[in-house]
Amino acid sequence: MNLGTYFLSEVVGTTLLLLLGCGVVANVALKGTKGNAGGFLLVNWGWGLAVFVGVITAAYSGAILNPAVGLGLLIAGKITFLMFLVATAGEMLGAIIGAVLCWLAYKQHFDEEPDPANKLGVFSTGPAIRSYGWNFITEVIGTFVLVFAVLAFSDWGIAKIGTPGGLGPLSALPVALVVVGIGASLGGPTGYAINPARDLGPRIAHAILPIKGKGSSDWAYSWVPVAGPLVGGAIAAALSPVLLHLTTFG
Amino acid sequence: MNLGTYFLSEVVGTTLLLLLGCGVVANVALKGTKGNAGGFLLVNWGWGLAVFVGVITAAYSGAILNPAVGLGLLIAGKITFLMFLVATAGEMLGAIIGAVLCWLAYKQHFDEEPDPANKLGVFSTGPAIRSYGWNFITEVIGTFVLVFAVLAFSDWGIAKIGTPGGLGPLSALPVALVVVGIGASLGGPTGYAINPARDLGPRIAHAILPIKGKGSSDWAYSWVPVAGPLVGGAIAAALSPVLLHLTTFG
Amino acid sequence: MNLGTYFLSEVVGTTLLLLLGCGVVANVALKGTKGNAGGFLLVNWGWGLAVFVGVITAAYSGAILNPAVGLGLLIAGKITFLMFLVATAGEMLGAIIGAVLCWLAYKQHFDEEPDPANKLGVFSTGPAIRSYGWNFITEVIGTFVLVFAVLAFSDWGIAKIGTPGGLGPLSALPVALVVVGIGASLGGPTGYAINPARDLGPRIAHAILPIKGKGSSDWAYSWVPVAGPLVGGAIAAALSPVLLHLTTFG
Amino acid sequence: MNLGTYFLSEVVGTTLLLLLGCGVVANVALKGTKGNAGGFLLVNWGWGLAVFVGVITAAYSGAILNPAVGLGLLIAGKITFLMFLVATAGEMLGAIIGAVLCWLAYKQHFDEEPDPANKLGVFSTGPAIRSYGWNFITEVIGTFVLVFAVLAFSDWGIAKIGTPGGLGPLSALPVALVVVGIGASLGGPTGYAINPARDLGPRIAHAILPIKGKGSSDWAYSWVPVAGPLVGGAIAAALSPVLLHLTTFG
Repeated sequence: MNLGTYFLSEVVGTTLLLLLGCGVVANVALKGTKGNAGGFLLVNWGWGLAVFVGVITAAYSGAILNPAVGLGLLIAGKITFLMFLVATAGEMLGAIIGAVLCWLAYKQHFDEEPDPANKLGVFSTGPAIRSYGWNFITEVIGTFVLVFAVLAFSDWGIAKIGTPGGLGPLSALPVALVVVGIGASLGGPTGYAINPARDLGPRIAHAILPIKGKGSSDWAYSWVPVAGPLVGGAIAAALSPVLLHLTTFG
Repeated sequence: MNLGTYFLSEVVGTTLLLLLGCGVVANVALKGTKGNAGGFLLVNWGWGLAVFVGVITAAYSGAILNPAVGLGLLIAGKITFLMFLVATAGEMLGAIIGAVLCWLAYKQHFDEEPDPANKLGVFSTGPAIRSYGWNFITEVIGTFVLVFAVLAFSDWGIAKIGTPGGLGPLSALPVALVVVGIGASLGGPTGYAINPARDLGPRIAHAILPIKGKGSSDWAYSWVPVAGPLVGGAIAAALSPVLLHLTTFG
Repeated sequence: MNLGTYFLSEVVGTTLLLLLGCGVVANVALKGTKGNAGGFLLVNWGWGLAVFVGVITAAYSGAILNPAVGLGLLIAGKITFLMFLVATAGEMLGAIIGAVLCWLAYKQHFDEEPDPANKLGVFSTGPAIRSYGWNFITEVIGTFVLVFAVLAFSDWGIAKIGTPGGLGPLSALPVALVVVGIGASLGGPTGYAINPARDLGPRIAHAILPIKGKGSSDWAYSWVPVAGPLVGGAIAAALSPVLLHLTTFG
Repeated sequence: MNLGTYFLSEVVGTTLLLLLGCGVVANVALKGTKGNAGGFLLVNWGWGLAVFVGVITAAYSGAILNPAVGLGLLIAGKITFLMFLVATAGEMLGAIIGAVLCWLAYKQHFDEEPDPANKLGVFSTGPAIRSYGWNFITEVIGTFVLVFAVLAFSDWGIAKIGTPGGLGPLSALPVALVVVGIGASLGGPTGYAINPARDLGPRIAHAILPIKGKGSSDWAYSWVPVAGPLVGGAIAAALSPVLLHLTTFG
């Protein structure tokens, strides 16, 4: 394994994840798009299939794409600390690039949209009812489900062919479906960041980009979708030796 | 096989099933969520993918997750009576835990929601038109389809790798799709409990939890989504030797 | 192969197909259901997953479930004329039984629904704009796509394991997706019968059953969703040797 | 490989792609259909499953179905220039035939629809906000994702069984899901042509067919959904040696 290629693989997969993930929110939220007000299920499928594309294109690095997943894999002993650092750096860079590409794809609709909150909503999550403590709990629970499921997959032989600790391309569909499900079921209160890079990277892009009529990047909330997912992922990894018993499927 | 681990596996899978299943109803029904009024198909996918996550995380025990399925497997001679009892106990415990976690994830929206019926609806099913006899028949028919399909899967070699009588992780997608389909097609009159633990466990949680402004737990109806599914599962298991002919796929 | 079991397998699969297929229309169309006005995509997924359940439970007979598919398999030389007759008889019987079960599951909502056209619509298809010639053409085109795709599948080794000429259970998902797609894309004008048994069987059930406040069974239209699919299936089978070139995947 | 059969395979697959793809837009957009105003997600699934049917029926030629994909495969060295030309010719012919069949299937609804723009919208894409430069960029980005993902698939052994450089039938579901995802996420500004044949072929059909009350074929815009996809596909192919590292899955 080459660490440079490992880094690049995470950049590529996370770029596509964020391009498509932010894209579906732009389609539903911004003025004048063809998918305007297309519904929450459209958003759920959009994000799930964004994960699908991200996983199939980041196969070299096991398609971590998410520091909370990386932390889970680290605690579970499936990747090293160096790999976790390199992957996380790649994910942050990819998340920023993906958000920029999304802005370019929807440039005119960003310009036409009058509400600054809708513009930020394309980039980063925000709570339906602001309460940092409860919002944090919701993100912990949602990410717990994600990382717990990923650790289950990563124990199946079929899912880890050729990967150095993460997910192989045959896991793309299962993981995508899990993300559709988490979004549908647990996305109601906070918009399911469940991934620190997914939220922080685009928030940085929002802060930097010359978006017409943009408002605050809401940095006050920004720690919730970083800390919540990391805690949820760590709990999932800590509990998985006790709660997951898949070894009979070796 | 270790019976304690078997029990724990059912607890884990059913916890995730109910967390995600109740979660999608909370998202659609409670005030102020991002998926509010998201439509019946969103609910169907949410419950189907809740089953998906439950099956992949309860592989050790064959992911029964449902006493009606367990009864069917018992009658079909695929699990023992002891296994049925242990699994059912685990499913009831998991269903309660999952419902509690869902309440935590949506705590603020439960607080904001003015209608007690919507709050109960997140936990347990209720009939669109109350008539215990017809509601019972609807639940019998829906659960018959579920258990009949599960018995078909469990006869395929590919689906039972490593499992002691239930479903292996490769059945997660087929079973999830069956549940999406039953919901879409037969969920209209009663909200498709099709699982005694799925309905009774959260109803107990609803009765116990200090939910703000909660109303009745509607115990008068509670026997229907327990008895209907058990009868439907038993009929499926009784008829499957006559109606299922999959032995050529050994 | 036992012809009695072959017949029974088609009865079972088509019963489940119609129970779930009519069910989703009942859920969307009848008064007071939980899925009322749930949208066309809900109907498409409901019918597609009805096919999924039908295919997995009729594996013994290759899950024909549709006389237009049977005619295509007959012309393509994959089943005998006797098998075609036996399968078609089973499909007609199963379609009637499935429609009766659907009526039982939604009994109260049939009673509450004021519009007789909505009641018939649960059982059988009707045109959006009545014009027998154009309606016929739409059904020919839709069924052509179905049978052409099924003939493609049936040439794949993986799809025919253990089946006597039709589809094995591993084809359940592909065929279901094809039916979702045909419904979404070609269901607009006539409601996509694309299956003579699917339309005629329930129409017979509608004529016989003591449905409260039912109207006409619209026999004048009934030949269109029988003749159109048979012609479409025959054309697909006739053209498939010229247009399908899958032999390199032997 | 026979070039005539190769051509025919692309004609068949692209005919079905356009019949179903234009069909779902007709269902959503034209007056009086059963899927009228069915939502953007219905359109996304319709187009995705149109790709699914196209891929499974064009297995002989590797199911290119799209000159932008063909250009990507050519640049990636997976097909020859002659194959690219033959495939592109077949795709253009198939796209025209498919659009004609769609018009026949929805003939009455084209006649009833009062708005010429809706009629053209069934055939070809148009921008939500007209700005050739930005529309071009959106098409480049969307097609980049498609071709980049296809190149990833085509490197997997499982996906290329029996194909001369494109996609085998086991890629049908992954590619369909990618197209659902691109539509949901990047279809908002331009309606995601992401395929020159998909847009130009039906535009020619629109210009030729005697459609009642049709308006302009909007030739001024027609270069965008041709040039944008070709550029996006070329960029994907040029970058894939640098950005895709799937060789460990040989």
